[in-house]
Amino acid sequence: MSPAGAGAGAGAGAGGTGRARTSRPVTPVPASTVEHYDAVTDVLVVGYGCAGAAAAYEAATAGAGVLVLERAGGPGGSSAQSGGELYLGGGTPVQHACGFEDSADEMYAYLAAALGPHADEEKLRLYCDGSTEHFQWFVDRGLTFEPTLWDQPTWMPTTKDGLMWLGENAWPYNEIARPAPRGHRCATDAFGGWLVMEKLVAAAEAAGATTHADTLATALVVDDDTGRVVGVRARRHGRELTYRARRAVVLTTGGFADNEEMLADHAPHLIGHGKVSDGLDDGSGIRMACALGAATRRMATVEIALTALPAMVTRGMLVNAHGQRFINEDVYPGLFSVAAVLTQPAPYWVIIDEEGYESIPEKDRWGVLPLHVTGTLAELEAELRMPAGALESTVTAYNTYAARGQDPFFHKDPRWLRPLKGPFAAVDPRAGFHQGGRPSAGAGTGAAGFTLGGLHTTVDGAVLDVSGEPVPGLYAAGRAAAGIHGEGYISGTSLGDGTFFGRRAGKAAAGGA
Amino acid sequence: MSPAGAGAGAGAGAGGTGRARTSRPVTPVPASTVEHYDAVTDVLVVGYGCAGAAAAYEAATAGAGVLVLERAGGPGGSSAQSGGELYLGGGTPVQHACGFEDSADEMYAYLAAALGPHADEEKLRLYCDGSTEHFQWFVDRGLTFEPTLWDQPTWMPTTKDGLMWLGENAWPYNEIARPAPRGHRCATDAFGGWLVMEKLVAAAEAAGATTHADTLATALVVDDDTGRVVGVRARRHGRELTYRARRAVVLTTGGFADNEEMLADHAPHLIGHGKVSDGLDDGSGIRMACALGAATRRMATVEIALTALPAMVTRGMLVNAHGQRFINEDVYPGLFSVAAVLTQPAPYWVIIDEEGYESIPEKDRWGVLPLHVTGTLAELEAELRMPAGALESTVTAYNTYAARGQDPFFHKDPRWLRPLKGPFAAVDPRAGFHQGGRPSAGAGTGAAGFTLGGLHTTVDGAVLDVSGEPVPGLYAAGRAAAGIHGEGYISGTSLGDGTFFGRRAGKAAAGGA
Repeated sequence: MSPAGAGAGAGAGAGGTGRARTSRPVTPVPASTVEHYDAVTDVLVVGYGCAGAAAAYEAATAGAGVLVLERAGGPGGSSAQSGGELYLGGGTPVQHACGFEDSADEMYAYLAAALGPHADEEKLRLYCDGSTEHFQWFVDRGLTFEPTLWDQPTWMPTTKDGLMWLGENAWPYNEIARPAPRGHRCATDAFGGWLVMEKLVAAAEAAGATTHADTLATALVVDDDTGRVVGVRARRHGRELTYRARRAVVLTTGGFADNEEMLADHAPHLIGHGKVSDGLDDGSGIRMACALGAATRRMATVEIALTALPAMVTRGMLVNAHGQRFINEDVYPGLFSVAAVLTQPAPYWVIIDEEGYESIPEKDRWGVLPLHVTGTLAELEAELRMPAGALESTVTAYNTYAARGQDPFFHKDPRWLRPLKGPFAAVDPRAGFHQGGRPSAGAGTGAAGFTLGGLHTTVDGAVLDVSGEPVPGLYAAGRAAAGIHGEGYISGTSLGDGTFFGRRAGKAAAGGA
Repeated sequence: MSPAGAGAGAGAGAGGTGRARTSRPVTPVPASTVEHYDAVTDVLVVGYGCAGAAAAYEAATAGAGVLVLERAGGPGGSSAQSGGELYLGGGTPVQHACGFEDSADEMYAYLAAALGPHADEEKLRLYCDGSTEHFQWFVDRGLTFEPTLWDQPTWMPTTKDGLMWLGENAWPYNEIARPAPRGHRCATDAFGGWLVMEKLVAAAEAAGATTHADTLATALVVDDDTGRVVGVRARRHGRELTYRARRAVVLTTGGFADNEEMLADHAPHLIGHGKVSDGLDDGSGIRMACALGAATRRMATVEIALTALPAMVTRGMLVNAHGQRFINEDVYPGLFSVAAVLTQPAPYWVIIDEEGYESIPEKDRWGVLPLHVTGTLAELEAELRMPAGALESTVTAYNTYAARGQDPFFHKDPRWLRPLKGPFAAVDPRAGFHQGGRPSAGAGTGAAGFTLGGLHTTVDGAVLDVSGEPVPGLYAAGRAAAGIHGEGYISGTSLGDGTFFGRRAGKAAAGGA
């Protein structure tokens, strides 16, 4: 608030809670105080990740003048550093080529469950109904997808396969919706995020969007009378700049995984873990909008990835510090990761036997070696400092049913069920790994993640205030906004809803006057 | 925002997200538009629960004119319907009379762990250091405490004992801090909240505070130039009223357990469960402040109480749907409740044997009868639809160690360790109970709770905006603010920090000009 506030709270102020406020002030700038605008455009997009690129492309294609501000040296953001998976379905050409039937309803049923509980049903419905069109939009922007399926559990295939399973064939989801793989990957044999961004940025520029890099947005400029957002105050190389947006400002600044203060205030579960980001996800867009009374949703929701090899977890078992299993190991890895880190006592252990370990192709072991190898479970319990009998009772129950191809506790696919017999090995997923595998950022605690909560927006990206009314002239998309997610997360849904709703926000912003 | 906003978001607006917005608009009122103030005072307190009463008392005692607005027909709020426990320690007369040594440091060590992770260290430090003085403050307000200890695990003693354990003697807390009971209860043999409120309201009125009941605050009045809060817009019996506060407004409106929309946006875990509240915890104070750019903290944090009898849980074992134990059953009941509801697959079962059940005094069974009684664990597993062997392996491990007075998994106090032998019984904590026991509101899902997140305030109650600066003229305390809690909760800390920081906010508000 205004300096007049400084005196109001006895002993209050920036240091009032003892924790020095390190986040930049985001005090709105009254338009009446702006004497000169350094640049004027129709639609001002703040942040050049996938949501910003999608918004810029659609706004420019709709005929609006578009300028994108990016605090880094160039476009990309966390999107460019991601795996590049796109969660798409409903019957895409790639799904058909791989022999899979799919529909928007089956896709919706799966995501409502896997992204739940409490997924945003209206946004999710639109996302699924528009998925085949959204796939074609990527193809039209120049992305190609190999019509082949990677059929093994993993974080990231080491091939160019264009399609992968993301938990659709695991219980209970295989009973909730007809399983069909929906993890789409553009043709690259490594992380594909950079390629997605290369194509989307080229498309946005071809449509006429211009970019100001090294430009950090610091506050929103607001019309004194109407409360309408009419521009952005920014900083480039130490110089203060003021931008005017004739039609609207679109905030696509990303989440707040890199803002320790916001994590402490809203998502403390991520504190101390690795971050899946470009290091610049400071939540500034969320804060700039909240300074105007904007509403947020689900700020505590996070995605967490454990550095555990799905190939290893699936063939063995994942247990908590007490040697208890807690989930079927063949779910999408993000789900067993979140279940472990948010609900189970650490350390977590991947228990596997020699036969299981040897059955993993060398290249898919990503250099991970068993930390503890023993002949008996009793010895392993001792090494892992578990009470005698803890692991043995778990393995005994597991083996008894596995011998019959059953897992009455968590219903792991019989494909992965086999009685485990010595010698046994334990792998500590917290140890992280360094070859090939995301999320190497997790090395240390073994977990890395990012935030899913953000600004409360309509399906067209209009930012809503706490009274439920749109903040005039302000839109948001990507992780700066609350998207389709509930408490769950599936790979490809972040680039997915970031681009899908980024496009809608760009169109609405271009038409918003 | 202003009506001008309505047109900005194409297809946006109140219904823009599909979920009709039912929460009242809280659009701030520019002071320049106020033609007439119906009443003028120095400090305007909004909400007459324990925090409002404490703030009103201290502000009036400091010489300020104080007016309290309460939407209900009279004072009380959720505080009056609570159990009335006050978490106090550091060496109170009651603790000494019961033969316990205590210190602010030991109290801090326990609460930092039990209210954690991520408790607010600065607020907690002040709370513990000022605890004996705060106890005396209650005594001086007319509350009496019997110098006797209730030594059994329970939600609520059925006696007038003035002191009770609230988990201090359970592992791991008994190793983190020297155990001392700190649950203080004023002399009443039922829920004591009404008595606490009776005394605090009488004290506030004696100090000169006046009350306007049936008066619903709907928005804050703000000075156009300085952004300072100078009053409140309200409604009484359909009539719109405007109040002016010369010095400050103190928001003590409670949490948002009764606002389904806010729960969906911020604390979805509580959706569908019972609410521990007076039915009026609508979060309106939080929203009114956020409309001015106020910051919030930990909005997803909730307290949840499972309708399970501690006397029964402690003597038996608490297991999840897979028959797994997950916590030492002798912790403060709120901790096993939160652990169950937020981290374990339902249904949860209390497993107890005949000897254990019979050892519970009739009056302490609160009419709860075993739902399932069987001679063997195999039969019980079948009745509870657990995989054969699930419960048997858990009980076998439990018994093996219990015979030696050990619980290497969760370290339950040997006092409660005894091998369980048939006949066995299972009690479904979700069934709820109706005699004597809080939280009867949980009957149905068996769980009931309230919200712990709220406005970001300084230790003096000044409401901070998202830039870390105080919103001039605005204070908050009680569950409308984020208090001393992290992800954990202990009974008595809500009336405790509500009154402790309510007092500080009242003093600061009286001095704030």
